[in-house]
Amino acid sequence: MSTKNVQIYHGDIIYSKSKTEFSVNPDSYLVVKEEKVEGIYPVIPEEYKEVPVTDYGRNLIIPAFSDLHIHASQFVQRGVGMDCLLFDWLNTYTFPQESNFKDPEYAKLIYDQVVQELLRHGTMHASLFTTIHYDASDYLFRAFEKHGMYGYIGKVNMDQNSPDFLCETTEDSLKETERFVYEHTGRTAGSHVKPILTPRFAPTCSHKMMEGLGKIAKKYQCGLQTHLSESREEVKFALEMFPEFESDAQIYEKYGMLEYGPSIFAHVIFPNEKDLEILKATGSMAVHCPDATVNITAGLMPAAAMWEQDINISLGSDIGGGHHAGIYHQIARTVQASKMKEFYEPEENRRLTFQEAFYLGTVGGGSCFGKVGSFEPGYQFNALVLGNLEDKGFELTPEERLEKFCYAGDDRNILERFLDGKKVVLN
Amino acid sequence: MSTKNVQIYHGDIIYSKSKTEFSVNPDSYLVVKEEKVEGIYPVIPEEYKEVPVTDYGRNLIIPAFSDLHIHASQFVQRGVGMDCLLFDWLNTYTFPQESNFKDPEYAKLIYDQVVQELLRHGTMHASLFTTIHYDASDYLFRAFEKHGMYGYIGKVNMDQNSPDFLCETTEDSLKETERFVYEHTGRTAGSHVKPILTPRFAPTCSHKMMEGLGKIAKKYQCGLQTHLSESREEVKFALEMFPEFESDAQIYEKYGMLEYGPSIFAHVIFPNEKDLEILKATGSMAVHCPDATVNITAGLMPAAAMWEQDINISLGSDIGGGHHAGIYHQIARTVQASKMKEFYEPEENRRLTFQEAFYLGTVGGGSCFGKVGSFEPGYQFNALVLGNLEDKGFELTPEERLEKFCYAGDDRNILERFLDGKKVVLN
Repeated sequence: MSTKNVQIYHGDIIYSKSKTEFSVNPDSYLVVKEEKVEGIYPVIPEEYKEVPVTDYGRNLIIPAFSDLHIHASQFVQRGVGMDCLLFDWLNTYTFPQESNFKDPEYAKLIYDQVVQELLRHGTMHASLFTTIHYDASDYLFRAFEKHGMYGYIGKVNMDQNSPDFLCETTEDSLKETERFVYEHTGRTAGSHVKPILTPRFAPTCSHKMMEGLGKIAKKYQCGLQTHLSESREEVKFALEMFPEFESDAQIYEKYGMLEYGPSIFAHVIFPNEKDLEILKATGSMAVHCPDATVNITAGLMPAAAMWEQDINISLGSDIGGGHHAGIYHQIARTVQASKMKEFYEPEENRRLTFQEAFYLGTVGGGSCFGKVGSFEPGYQFNALVLGNLEDKGFELTPEERLEKFCYAGDDRNILERFLDGKKVVLN
Repeated sequence: MSTKNVQIYHGDIIYSKSKTEFSVNPDSYLVVKEEKVEGIYPVIPEEYKEVPVTDYGRNLIIPAFSDLHIHASQFVQRGVGMDCLLFDWLNTYTFPQESNFKDPEYAKLIYDQVVQELLRHGTMHASLFTTIHYDASDYLFRAFEKHGMYGYIGKVNMDQNSPDFLCETTEDSLKETERFVYEHTGRTAGSHVKPILTPRFAPTCSHKMMEGLGKIAKKYQCGLQTHLSESREEVKFALEMFPEFESDAQIYEKYGMLEYGPSIFAHVIFPNEKDLEILKATGSMAVHCPDATVNITAGLMPAAAMWEQDINISLGSDIGGGHHAGIYHQIARTVQASKMKEFYEPEENRRLTFQEAFYLGTVGGGSCFGKVGSFEPGYQFNALVLGNLEDKGFELTPEERLEKFCYAGDDRNILERFLDGKKVVLN
């Protein structure tokens, strides 16, 4: 048997074997064959005895993270203006910053940093909002492809209730969106990056816009990402704009946007029964962004309750509403947020465990991108090697080291990154 | 006029000039004279023209942080076992770990790391619990002195409701405590470190213990640190043990422990009217530890409401209930926690601003240690230089850079540390 294209990595290997349980493989060997996990073994199987082993000792080997909600254009403003109320924050920071992306050179400067920072923090799969601008969005798409990352990239639509300098005509918005989707569908062999429809949120999109986007979804078999039930005010505003609908999610359902690709809904803090019914029936993804929803004082997603109804959940940094790119921190924050939710609303909510939160940031989010986020056989070897997680005088189990990384670690603890089986070299 | 013992530092200088407002001095000169801030100037005053300037360019110069609640012995277990319920966490991690400190060599190994990590994260003033062990506590005390840090160090008392291996007899506990206080009071000229009484919390200390501690307080004019109203269960338990008292704080007041040094009460989540009255009347310090109280699902301190009643408030990492040593992160968490408090209990609570939270972590906590935590004239130059807080293509104001540091920064952003006017060299 040929062992060409086989690599073997030794270390303490952890991934989620179910929603609630880790597969913990201390002192084990992970065999990668043609970029994919072949298996994990306590000793090297006979047929691979010849293959040289890359030994990471007691370091952890874990699947790479997925970030299902980021505003790429807001990356450089993370952690700033956090005291502002939402509309002040949008008007002072976010909208002026987004308007800078009409300049493709500016987009290049910022988006190159976004790609590097995502990789630095171990995020290899991401769903990103750009801005309304075609060229800037195109640059991010190509940058993701160039680095072999997995992504959905969406040019934003907004034709009402937006500042003049960011407001498109309905016609232009739809034309540019169709061009973006057409030009980026199946363009490059082996690409893991896809275009996705990105109406900012219901209040910024007219009925005519929604109708047009529904047609593009059907014509190009394209998915959707947007904000859903981000705050009580947003739900109210959305349903005032679309009074014929019973819920925020129903707007997108009725216009035919939940049928073809993934439907990725950020926040989902105050879903009504209809929203939940639609999310479940369409297999949509709800994205929990704990830091961001606390920063904007929106409230906390009823994550455990939704999960128990078999609604798909994943995690997002929601930069710039969130302030840090590390999904590992959002894993810790998910546990923390669930504890606050349970404390204040104990009847309907229970806390999530660390194992559950880790699943959301790896398997949960990864499910949108193909076979990534796990080390079950056949999954892509998109992985991180973690180390320096113990202090002198206090030995930790592999699970404890992983927990400490998510709570108190940072990118310095990520010693190596693998994407499609190949080492990632940071700039 | 002699300019010996004068240093000048140039940069963007920020400190809290009041509870709600920063003094922001971009492109300014901070003059230090005999370890103390002499003044901040837009141009160098004539009499100091000869003094060479250390130029930090656009980097920030800010006061160093104070951490008013840490368990030094739990440092190495931070970020681990966060899913455990309180009593499981104590029994699985904390109590066995604390018992290791009977070995002075182990204490040395851990406490040397504690001192380095505090300095690394810009904390130069701290109030620490050790364990019940004399020699270990003595080592931490000397380590703090050796590095010129400001501290209160308390040997822990526990003579009931504790595991056998950590439970002292009342007599031994009082004897060792008196020895600790006696041996460490005014021992070293120029020392900024003082002993402090540290009954773990009311349920672990008998009436006889409290009485004895009250006598030591009086005899040595010694302060107190303990946990107060950490959870509803704790309050109930404390008042079952001390049924003759109306509140948790009253136990310490009646036994005469709030009269001599600072009284530092960690958490204070469910204070009753009597507690608040006593805290205010005695000028006690309430320590807000937002990450820790979320981790143990205890609830959130009514910080804004207490502050409006002129109760002193400061911040604590509460390692190991909290998971990170950076008080700068607790500043961001304080804003976040206050937003959740306001969201869920809007009638009695308002959010705290970033400016207010920064005040708590610098001036608020610093007030226990003398003139530290501010750059008003006469304050010790205990300071940090912060940099690398901007991305390419997005310039930030000094305040914005400080906010970004607290939300998304880490110890790599701390470029220099000054303690009593001298540069700190990390190991």
